[in-house]
Amino acid sequence: MMSNTTTNSEAVTAGIQAILDPRSIAFIGASDDVVKWGGVLLHLLQKFKYEGAIYPINPKASSIQGLPAYRSVRDIGRPIDLAVITIGVDGVEQAMRECAACGVRAAMVVTSQFAEAGPEGAAKQQRVLEVARKAGIAMIGPNCMGVLNAHQNLALLNSTALLDSFTSIPTGRIGVVSQSGAVVGAMIARAGHVGAGFSSCVSLGNQADLEICDFFDYLVDDPKTGVICLYMESANSVDRLFSIAQRARRAGKPVLITKAGRTPQGARAVASHTASLAGTYETFAARCRAAGVLLQTDALQMLLTAQALLAFPLPPAQGVALFSGSGGAGALGSDALGDYGLVPAELGAGTRAALGEFFSESNLPLPYDMGAAVVGPGKGRADLLSASIEPIFADPAVGSCIYIMTPQSSMSDIARLFTELGRRHGKPAFVVNSASGITENMRLALIELGAPFFPSLHEAMLTVRDLLWLREAEQRSADAADAAPASQADLPAALHDFLRQQPAGMLSEDDAKKMLALAGLDVAAGVLAPDARSAVQLAQDMGYPVVLKIVADGVTHKSDMGGVALNLADADAVRAAFERIERAAAELPDARFLGCLVQPMIKGEVELMIGSVYDDAFGPFLMLGAGGTLVELLKDTQLLPAPASAADIERALRSLRCFPLLDGYRGRQPADIERLVAISQRVSELATALGPRLPELDINPLAISGNRAVVLDARARWIAD
Amino acid sequence: MMSNTTTNSEAVTAGIQAILDPRSIAFIGASDDVVKWGGVLLHLLQKFKYEGAIYPINPKASSIQGLPAYRSVRDIGRPIDLAVITIGVDGVEQAMRECAACGVRAAMVVTSQFAEAGPEGAAKQQRVLEVARKAGIAMIGPNCMGVLNAHQNLALLNSTALLDSFTSIPTGRIGVVSQSGAVVGAMIARAGHVGAGFSSCVSLGNQADLEICDFFDYLVDDPKTGVICLYMESANSVDRLFSIAQRARRAGKPVLITKAGRTPQGARAVASHTASLAGTYETFAARCRAAGVLLQTDALQMLLTAQALLAFPLPPAQGVALFSGSGGAGALGSDALGDYGLVPAELGAGTRAALGEFFSESNLPLPYDMGAAVVGPGKGRADLLSASIEPIFADPAVGSCIYIMTPQSSMSDIARLFTELGRRHGKPAFVVNSASGITENMRLALIELGAPFFPSLHEAMLTVRDLLWLREAEQRSADAADAAPASQADLPAALHDFLRQQPAGMLSEDDAKKMLALAGLDVAAGVLAPDARSAVQLAQDMGYPVVLKIVADGVTHKSDMGGVALNLADADAVRAAFERIERAAAELPDARFLGCLVQPMIKGEVELMIGSVYDDAFGPFLMLGAGGTLVELLKDTQLLPAPASAADIERALRSLRCFPLLDGYRGRQPADIERLVAISQRVSELATALGPRLPELDINPLAISGNRAVVLDARARWIAD
Repeated sequence: MMSNTTTNSEAVTAGIQAILDPRSIAFIGASDDVVKWGGVLLHLLQKFKYEGAIYPINPKASSIQGLPAYRSVRDIGRPIDLAVITIGVDGVEQAMRECAACGVRAAMVVTSQFAEAGPEGAAKQQRVLEVARKAGIAMIGPNCMGVLNAHQNLALLNSTALLDSFTSIPTGRIGVVSQSGAVVGAMIARAGHVGAGFSSCVSLGNQADLEICDFFDYLVDDPKTGVICLYMESANSVDRLFSIAQRARRAGKPVLITKAGRTPQGARAVASHTASLAGTYETFAARCRAAGVLLQTDALQMLLTAQALLAFPLPPAQGVALFSGSGGAGALGSDALGDYGLVPAELGAGTRAALGEFFSESNLPLPYDMGAAVVGPGKGRADLLSASIEPIFADPAVGSCIYIMTPQSSMSDIARLFTELGRRHGKPAFVVNSASGITENMRLALIELGAPFFPSLHEAMLTVRDLLWLREAEQRSADAADAAPASQADLPAALHDFLRQQPAGMLSEDDAKKMLALAGLDVAAGVLAPDARSAVQLAQDMGYPVVLKIVADGVTHKSDMGGVALNLADADAVRAAFERIERAAAELPDARFLGCLVQPMIKGEVELMIGSVYDDAFGPFLMLGAGGTLVELLKDTQLLPAPASAADIERALRSLRCFPLLDGYRGRQPADIERLVAISQRVSELATALGPRLPELDINPLAISGNRAVVLDARARWIAD
Repeated sequence: MMSNTTTNSEAVTAGIQAILDPRSIAFIGASDDVVKWGGVLLHLLQKFKYEGAIYPINPKASSIQGLPAYRSVRDIGRPIDLAVITIGVDGVEQAMRECAACGVRAAMVVTSQFAEAGPEGAAKQQRVLEVARKAGIAMIGPNCMGVLNAHQNLALLNSTALLDSFTSIPTGRIGVVSQSGAVVGAMIARAGHVGAGFSSCVSLGNQADLEICDFFDYLVDDPKTGVICLYMESANSVDRLFSIAQRARRAGKPVLITKAGRTPQGARAVASHTASLAGTYETFAARCRAAGVLLQTDALQMLLTAQALLAFPLPPAQGVALFSGSGGAGALGSDALGDYGLVPAELGAGTRAALGEFFSESNLPLPYDMGAAVVGPGKGRADLLSASIEPIFADPAVGSCIYIMTPQSSMSDIARLFTELGRRHGKPAFVVNSASGITENMRLALIELGAPFFPSLHEAMLTVRDLLWLREAEQRSADAADAAPASQADLPAALHDFLRQQPAGMLSEDDAKKMLALAGLDVAAGVLAPDARSAVQLAQDMGYPVVLKIVADGVTHKSDMGGVALNLADADAVRAAFERIERAAAELPDARFLGCLVQPMIKGEVELMIGSVYDDAFGPFLMLGAGGTLVELLKDTQLLPAPASAADIERALRSLRCFPLLDGYRGRQPADIERLVAISQRVSELATALGPRLPELDINPLAISGNRAVVLDARARWIAD
């Protein structure tokens, strides 16, 4: 019910508060058996010393886990903030009625076999929901694993780690909202191991009532939460999600999202798991990039990144300084940097001079090899280490530091020193466990310092990459504040008139080009020749060489069926090509041949693809890529939510792997980038203004020579009003 | 001294045996202080109950660590297999003389400050080596961290894990030889944690005498060794290395190599660390690929893969089946598969039917979600699990299985069942720790079963990818046994005659093409026009359109300086282009303009690059790639040691990302692959026969249209006899 409001209503906020910070809990289905849900959750509440009132409900017992039990919610006679429901599916509706009768404020329905189990369960879920709504009870679930509020000692979440291993709830400033209970469980177990901690964790279940955005919005205002992590399988109210993300950003709280369904296999698994559909992952990712939301592929990695964000500031520079106790590990680490898009820090001359005291000329200061730092004067080992490391931390080219801890003596001391230097110089300083199980003391030392402990180099490098991305996103957002907003100019009236006349379906090449010409683009228009003779006549008038392209109903991929002939140098060539194309069309049962377009042969120095796509879930997007068929094969494309700003478009163009070709590569004439940005913006405006009526548009190729940029071919799908 | 023999001499074998399996050890520099090398190694020998004789040598003490001490080796009076030397650098030569006088068979020199510390140390090292050689003492080191032979309780290796944590040496069938001591130390620590075990580990140090290949060769014949892992920073005797690798392969022992120096940064770090130079990483990698040697980028990952190889057979099929206790983890895992080049298993109809008992229609059987497998009849949970998992293991499309263990109950039991099913069905079954620190019992259960325990999904997926690669390499090697050997045909006499007349340096385009024509390739020969008038005349004779290309001494990258004009359609265009090229040449101070080649404009449907390169360390290589400048940018190339077999060349062609363009992509005419393979073989033969005299050759582009393939441009560097 809340999905269309931008921020939570007061009722929703109050409901979530009753769930995450209840003063009293009625436990419908409480049990002495800690293998059952009603047993384990009650046990956890007591184990972690929840301070509010707990009322176990169980008609068959007078006490449960040492607490006096009640036959029904009606028998409690005191105000109830939260009802936890763990009884069988068929009793839930009645239990909710009783809650309604007693003025319960919120309900957490753990019970499963609702909508996730099929249509019958969905009907049951709907009935429970109606009872709750009518009574103004905020509901989380059904089919949820529960919630946790570490700062209130509230562990209402079925977690093996909490149950069997931990003596306290991992407490900190990470807020988690998840569409999977097991993912939260894995994050809690990891948190305990690496010393990360939570404000609140929420397992959403079926989201019959309260949904991901409601909790997300709540955490933005929660003073205990500093970083927000979401695990998603589907996104319903995407615009709301990103507007909350914007609010979080303004509040200085980084937002991290792990979304399953990145690949066809994952999407199939998600569909099977949650029975919900979503937009494409690529368009969602483009929205995240534009919004400065850090998209992750692994929930455990997300936890480490969140922890790093709370432990250190963002890296003030790109360069990464690697440290290790051995040359071999440092060399392998250096090799790995590029795999993560990272660059090694180049130390300044002053730093190198300062380090000359500790390193012989044959040893580089980076990667720092403690074994090689032996030249210093007769200081103790710890002093030597500190004195030989600190100049590196102080160097402005160093943005972050990673220590690869292979087995060595004094690992805890090194880790402590390293972390403290990072704090002092305002730079992330990450310690990597390359010593496996023999680092227990070091792990405890890092936990004590509140610093992350990376299980391997892989995670540490991913985290540095992510922090650098966030830094860039922050700068981008600061730039954007100065820049003009993305233009949303109205389309020319003539274009509207033209489109009004188009029937739904694929536009012909000719019509697609007309649309683009009306939108202000330079177009290599062809002239339709119905037969070979008029094709030759047209070619002679234009001047050789020319191009022929098939015009036929029912043919969209012209080159696939042999419908394009390039570089025709004389009348004979034109005639032969026309006849060949006509024959090829005759072989296609669905094609109705209308003739060929004749146009002058134009060959750009470089060819780009510019297009747009409309995603029903996530809206319009601008797509940029290298042109031609080869690069389609190589997947060199960039996707941007439309409308896109000039700065974002230019950034995307520069991110293309083929960008050097536009930039004077090997003697080519540099392209007019400003002009390409303007053309892209025109396409972005078109996509924005036409929305779902223009599901796809492809300009391919746009032929570019210096400051000329001409549409040579285009295709578009149009959905009439 | 041993680097040029293919297999070890008897003396070397005996020397290594004295090091890895000594019956008696003299300890020169033995100490009571376990912070010193002479203390820690002696302590480890006794801690792990080495059974041979130990003779501590220390002139200042009568007993060391409870053992009677000797003033000198001369005082022992019994035969000594191995002398361990840990005294200061300036005493080592004298100590070696005493060893020589007493008939010591081998020496392990731990002492550092030898060649790695500069020229003075190198001279000291040389003197020690000469003493050892004269006396027939096999020497390991100096500057080495020691050796370990787990099956003989011999821990002569300074490892923090062995010293502080382990109560027994991790024992098994993995043999390690390493140019970094710290890397071995990290592998030992990891082995203890994941339950991997070693036959022998060797830290090589400076390799003054015994070097990597000597130990590698030894391990091939060592019955306790089943898999061999090498960590390398430089490779001296490469041909020997790969000939030993071939012997290992025939002996059924997989060879894994981690080589630092993959990137410029890593190479710089290696150079700083070991002061040795190496060939390029890419050519080394190509040799490894061809030899079926598994090249790794991380030594800890190498250990896990080695362990997996010993625990399970290679996957019998490509498909990967993912299992987890939760839908979310399974979906994220499915998403990750493609990142590692893995494909999800598609279960057969029979398997799906068998699983219908356990899964509702809305739940897919894969990724297996234990939470969804609830539909079964009233069996116990363990039976349900086993019955619902086994059909997946039995499916022939499933080659390997990965269980993502998020926190859940009965983790140890699940891991045990899963491992046993893998063993029963002859398929790798990997358990991944996604439950962090709460899996201690599971870890112990897996160690008991001798099964690997993956710290995260990342490592498990890398391992599956590697095992599949080894499987493919095995099949390839079986195919190769049937196929004809790579041809090494002699070059035609005319080609030799032609080359004899060439001076050293870059060949002109014309000469490079002549060389290729003489080698049997189809070449688009141009005719040299010294001035614009003759260029027009030649063009008219050939027929338009034509191409002009500069011919000038001192110009090699013709297009970079504007020296190429394509698609000239008439006399005016030819004249203008000639003059423009002549002007461009005049602006280059070092160029001497000789005219332009005129040749007919040929445009292939597809363009390839075929070339060769000679690496001084690793020999001749054939290089294949997409042609033109764009794909150079995109780095779509394959490298093969020359001579290369037809099968390997075809496999490399098919691995190019641009291969679909050769294969009828979007209506193109398919290329004649056999012809392209033959042309590549011609180039491979040329590179093999000419060796270092042809450091580089580039055919770019080779224009391909159906069964035509013409060299349009070529460059070559020639070193005269």
